[in-house]
Amino acid sequence: MFSMGDEENLSIKKNDSSTVSAKSIVQKKLEELGMKFCEEIDRGVFPTIQMKSRSTSNIFYSPKYKQYILGDSKVTRSSRNIAHLRPFAQMVWTAYFVHELIKQKKTSTLRDVYYSAQAYDIFFKDQSESDNIITDLETVIEHPRESFNVFPEERSAVFGDLTIEYTVPGYEGRRMNLSSHPDGVMIGPALTDARFIKTSADKVIVIEKGAMFTRFVEEKVYERFNAILIHTAGQAPRSTRYFIRRLNRELGLPVYIFSDGDPWGMHIAMVIISGSANAAHLRELTTPDAKWAGVWASDIIDYKLPSEKLSEIDIKRLKELKNDPRYEDRHWQKQIDLFMKIKKKCELEAFSRYGLTHIVDKYLPERLKELGA
Amino acid sequence: MFSMGDEENLSIKKNDSSTVSAKSIVQKKLEELGMKFCEEIDRGVFPTIQMKSRSTSNIFYSPKYKQYILGDSKVTRSSRNIAHLRPFAQMVWTAYFVHELIKQKKTSTLRDVYYSAQAYDIFFKDQSESDNIITDLETVIEHPRESFNVFPEERSAVFGDLTIEYTVPGYEGRRMNLSSHPDGVMIGPALTDARFIKTSADKVIVIEKGAMFTRFVEEKVYERFNAILIHTAGQAPRSTRYFIRRLNRELGLPVYIFSDGDPWGMHIAMVIISGSANAAHLRELTTPDAKWAGVWASDIIDYKLPSEKLSEIDIKRLKELKNDPRYEDRHWQKQIDLFMKIKKKCELEAFSRYGLTHIVDKYLPERLKELGA
Repeated sequence: MFSMGDEENLSIKKNDSSTVSAKSIVQKKLEELGMKFCEEIDRGVFPTIQMKSRSTSNIFYSPKYKQYILGDSKVTRSSRNIAHLRPFAQMVWTAYFVHELIKQKKTSTLRDVYYSAQAYDIFFKDQSESDNIITDLETVIEHPRESFNVFPEERSAVFGDLTIEYTVPGYEGRRMNLSSHPDGVMIGPALTDARFIKTSADKVIVIEKGAMFTRFVEEKVYERFNAILIHTAGQAPRSTRYFIRRLNRELGLPVYIFSDGDPWGMHIAMVIISGSANAAHLRELTTPDAKWAGVWASDIIDYKLPSEKLSEIDIKRLKELKNDPRYEDRHWQKQIDLFMKIKKKCELEAFSRYGLTHIVDKYLPERLKELGA
Repeated sequence: MFSMGDEENLSIKKNDSSTVSAKSIVQKKLEELGMKFCEEIDRGVFPTIQMKSRSTSNIFYSPKYKQYILGDSKVTRSSRNIAHLRPFAQMVWTAYFVHELIKQKKTSTLRDVYYSAQAYDIFFKDQSESDNIITDLETVIEHPRESFNVFPEERSAVFGDLTIEYTVPGYEGRRMNLSSHPDGVMIGPALTDARFIKTSADKVIVIEKGAMFTRFVEEKVYERFNAILIHTAGQAPRSTRYFIRRLNRELGLPVYIFSDGDPWGMHIAMVIISGSANAAHLRELTTPDAKWAGVWASDIIDYKLPSEKLSEIDIKRLKELKNDPRYEDRHWQKQIDLFMKIKKKCELEAFSRYGLTHIVDKYLPERLKELGA
């Protein structure tokens, strides 16, 4: 899972076992790192570690990858340097700890790693110090922390016709269809590591709001539009972004994102598409081909939607997005300008103004057609 | 579902169809309300509506029910009174709308109801006005809004050996076992309305944190301790509190709640047990027999847990809890005093200080034994 992969080799891989072999790649990389330290000690030299710099001066936007990436500037951490000794030791322990997680097939969270360190007499002054070391390790190993079993606390849900096969202990080989439970099943470690077996879906629809997710399930959007539905519950957690990418890359499904019609909703869509500057050292958390499907500023006018006035903070945020390189595309720029002009925003639920099923009966088919689905 | 029931008739009801018949009771009550208005109009009198007052002067703590309840003071809303006309009309529409929801087997949310009103030219000046009318309707009908299909946006998850049978459209009669997906399945409208068919569990363990929920699944707590596991994701949403109550009442399972060792964690446990003053007009959202299983202030000492200093806000909150009638029990009082004395707080994850599985291998069995499980 969470394989870094070759950037040139991103064609559709159907039902292969990429998620499992990728985990063994991470395990191997961690072991090579340990070997390197041992050999250095054997040779009588102080162990060092080199990684790409994550300072803001080394973060650039790449139009090719449609995301932030790190430049060529590097930092070296040496156990010889007394100022480096503490973070160096912390990273060695963290690498050991996550290697144990993989070996024992256990998962953990950032918070848990912070406390677990104390069991080994490794002390972090607070969680931000341990979080930072884990990001260092992501940079060195070139895989997201989920691939060494450190998962986020938040979860979101999925519903649709996709049969998966578990690889987690106690469930190996067991299959489930993701339409088994109409309230949706959680996207957690088990689903992240599952193999994709079979689907009749030809698209993925991502929804920010739980109310709309439930509406879409009730109105059988999965059947009427052959879609896998994903509920992000606001800003999509990393494992959900990774799951969306897998649906897009491994199954070749186009992805359409519906979020509130305001700068915050736009950014929920954008982070799924292009990721965040914080994850400039990773590629596995973006879906550059995903499409922002609404609510657009122009929808507020075209669909005569109930709206609210933009607040000062909304306007400030729109100005920031206007100059954000991820928003350089003409459609996004046009919509930002229109939000500014009409000074209005609108939620997904606003379609209920024309009846509960209006969003599914009218807006959804029109928008999917418009986007060439 | 969400039947108000007779307070004296709360014995264990195994696998009956109470959830379905209760929904038809709500439907009938709504129809009777409409009939009453029609008859009044036929008789040439202005329709009125009477309900218990929800003003703070009419909210009392009941040691018998272990929750806040409303007193005998009543308010009358008359369509004759020009000042009452607006909320009266709003309530008539809301009653009509939720009756349609039940008839059409659709669900909605508070936000959705607010927007839907505009489709009928009924206007609320903001969502708090429509939320308030829905609470009025709960008070009149004496059932929580979930029983007329208005659900919260937030969700939490469940995992364990419990076979349920769906009653929602398209899924009628289909069964699922809640241990099918190791990440947990969402607690939404479909699960709320499901029948309980079969379980091998003899207890329910409720966990505030996702990290611990995942740990408990990975360490097979459901098998080792015959437990159904519930993840509340912080303060338990209403449908989750209702689901916990059903497990306790219909299946006779004792409930143990694990939350962070601080006033906020205590209150997560307390709201599951005794509810909130906001829901004083309802009985279906509490589980008076549920037990707060930790983290106690005494655990910080007894288990030598890593802790943080209480903040000013924590101390202020503890003082409030100290005088809250729901906290009158001796054990809670003792723990509040001890938190104040040691001036420390502690999270569930702190047990990882002794290794990832310490909480499951040592703390959990010791605590369950202590509580007589």
